[in-house]
Amino acid sequence: MAEKLIGACIFGQSGGPTSVINASAYGVIRTALDAPEITKVYGAAHGVVGVLSNILYDLDKEDAGELELLMNTPSSELGSCRYKIKDENDLRRIHEVFKKYDVRYFFYNGGNDSMDTCQKVSDYLERVGYECRVMGVPKTIDNDLVGTDHCPGFGSAAKYIATTVAEVSKDARVYDTGTITVIEIMGRHAGWLTGASALAGLAGIPPDFIYLPEIPFDMEKFLDNAEKTYRANRNCLITVSEGVRYADGVFVAEAATSGTDGFGHAQLGGTAARLAHAIGQRTGAKVRGIELSLLQRCAAHLASQTDIEEAYLAGKSAVEYAVSGGSGRMVAFEREEKNGAYHCGIRFQPLSMCANTEKKVPREWINEAGTYVTQEFIDYVLPLIQGENTMKIENGIPRFAKLKKIKAGV
Amino acid sequence: MAEKLIGACIFGQSGGPTSVINASAYGVIRTALDAPEITKVYGAAHGVVGVLSNILYDLDKEDAGELELLMNTPSSELGSCRYKIKDENDLRRIHEVFKKYDVRYFFYNGGNDSMDTCQKVSDYLERVGYECRVMGVPKTIDNDLVGTDHCPGFGSAAKYIATTVAEVSKDARVYDTGTITVIEIMGRHAGWLTGASALAGLAGIPPDFIYLPEIPFDMEKFLDNAEKTYRANRNCLITVSEGVRYADGVFVAEAATSGTDGFGHAQLGGTAARLAHAIGQRTGAKVRGIELSLLQRCAAHLASQTDIEEAYLAGKSAVEYAVSGGSGRMVAFEREEKNGAYHCGIRFQPLSMCANTEKKVPREWINEAGTYVTQEFIDYVLPLIQGENTMKIENGIPRFAKLKKIKAGV
Repeated sequence: MAEKLIGACIFGQSGGPTSVINASAYGVIRTALDAPEITKVYGAAHGVVGVLSNILYDLDKEDAGELELLMNTPSSELGSCRYKIKDENDLRRIHEVFKKYDVRYFFYNGGNDSMDTCQKVSDYLERVGYECRVMGVPKTIDNDLVGTDHCPGFGSAAKYIATTVAEVSKDARVYDTGTITVIEIMGRHAGWLTGASALAGLAGIPPDFIYLPEIPFDMEKFLDNAEKTYRANRNCLITVSEGVRYADGVFVAEAATSGTDGFGHAQLGGTAARLAHAIGQRTGAKVRGIELSLLQRCAAHLASQTDIEEAYLAGKSAVEYAVSGGSGRMVAFEREEKNGAYHCGIRFQPLSMCANTEKKVPREWINEAGTYVTQEFIDYVLPLIQGENTMKIENGIPRFAKLKKIKAGV
Repeated sequence: MAEKLIGACIFGQSGGPTSVINASAYGVIRTALDAPEITKVYGAAHGVVGVLSNILYDLDKEDAGELELLMNTPSSELGSCRYKIKDENDLRRIHEVFKKYDVRYFFYNGGNDSMDTCQKVSDYLERVGYECRVMGVPKTIDNDLVGTDHCPGFGSAAKYIATTVAEVSKDARVYDTGTITVIEIMGRHAGWLTGASALAGLAGIPPDFIYLPEIPFDMEKFLDNAEKTYRANRNCLITVSEGVRYADGVFVAEAATSGTDGFGHAQLGGTAARLAHAIGQRTGAKVRGIELSLLQRCAAHLASQTDIEEAYLAGKSAVEYAVSGGSGRMVAFEREEKNGAYHCGIRFQPLSMCANTEKKVPREWINEAGTYVTQEFIDYVLPLIQGENTMKIENGIPRFAKLKKIKAGV
């Protein structure tokens, strides 16, 4: 049994937001507020940037009901950042702020960059002999964190993508004249999200092709496939990762042929717009490029209840683990079976395992042609998109949390 | 009391689909199947194109449970078309097919072009002395039909837009570095949908500016407004109709400066991409253009229950009115009050009133600067987005209707 550590905690959010990152926030905040060992609960404005600049919110002063609404509030309620720890000055500054507020617990909610921040803070504080327990709480729609079966945020984005692709697929097949539709999905390096579009197939309307960044992109094959399907069915629906790139490593979205034109106008289209345009030129078909854009990571109204509960659990577990003596770990999920059904187990992984690495879709979960995912992939995603959220609706639209965000120490 | 007319009916769908057009389909089909006067219920494949080419589905042979799932199935389940009646040959052909199947009722579900089709068919059949009752069932997310308080399909699209803009607004404000976001919304000639983005304000996060096609677009003023707000708040969120155009009538999305470049590459971006790019150049801010694209018209998962029920009612009322002797009308909605609450009344308008005309947002529902809608506009939309649908979910995604579509007469 570890020694009881009494003191304040800071919680911060970092990196791209998700539909459920605030459910993790609520998991941390609620559990910390209820923990006798934790004397004060501070929220850092814009993650570690708020720590460095001493802008902390006094979360003890928030209304309990509003805090609970975080369960269904998208985006990072405390603000996010993309800041990477630069040097010892940063770490010294963090140490100073921690001392000022007697911070003994630091919970940081983010992706692999954020785990790197956690690791650096943890190492530094240990080195200077300042007792503080540091825990990483995972989040990323990209699902690319190593050391965990899956990441909070992914299931909701996957549910959004599967649902939206099914709906668009219905719409895109409506005319007798035929169309080709290209849907661009997030994922710069890993194809988890784009692969999730295969789950539209459960509604009977799967995409015809799925292109992931794990497979080098071949424009000729891409056009051939699209053309053949269009000629056969008068219709073709393709999902493509924003991160697809040619064998030479150049992103499709940035290839030179589509760069700045002779008049100095930047070419505005992304991957979907470019590919749709190319297919249109090849086939003469009516084409449409659709970018799911921010919608796939902020559509809390379509969040998976499984994901919401797991995100909450991740935050809660981080606090419980730290209070009971643990530190230097990231909360991780392990897939278990319970009475024959999916169950999410909790593990605690060394931060070093999770920082700065990326988990890609395994080659064997992609078909041989590199144009679709396998049944194993679908089986992996399926339990994560289950359950409809029961968010509070007011005036026909979601009622999100409204925090007071009272600055601490002023 | 009109004479009883016994015979078959044809139902068809036309124009751009909506989230709830199939709820109207179900209203027509269910009521027609149950009406003793109607001997057979045919569905036209791809609207009037299916009539002309004699491709009809035998809707009597569908499973009742699958038909009921039409209530929550987006897009036009029988297929749509953009076909406009060309000449007497078309009308003669329609008359032939009607005679062949003893069709005495024709229900056509669409926008103002479809009402024109109804009118022509109705006039022709009357002229040649073929007794057939013709009814228009309105649908359009654009809400631009004359003669009705609002259109089935609009409420759901408005709910999607308000919710999505609220969610994106949360996401777009997350970083400390600031961003400018431009969201492009459908509506080539009327700003009803774009105006509905103001309802995100009910969640406390309204757009900063709303640009409708009703107001001539002034790029300088647009950039000034965006820059001023961005400098003041480090953030700016703008919604803009795809149909905004300059005072000379040229669409922003088609203005010459952004046309085909010197190398023959078409400029791919739409209105949002172009405007975001222009603001980026002016301010140096991080910008993002988002096109809601097809999603706003097919997101059945976020359909307004009010809209679903009204769409069903429109279909049902068309059949009841025809069976009781009416013809040559479009079903229309009238806003009524019942016990102090919103209530949707049913009227029957002459097709001639509704065909080929467009209802725009009244000038007095747009603020003086032409950059936002008024409270009257918000009050008008609010009741139409109420109610969460209770669609069937299977495997975590919507379970849409699966019709057999058995061809008639083969």
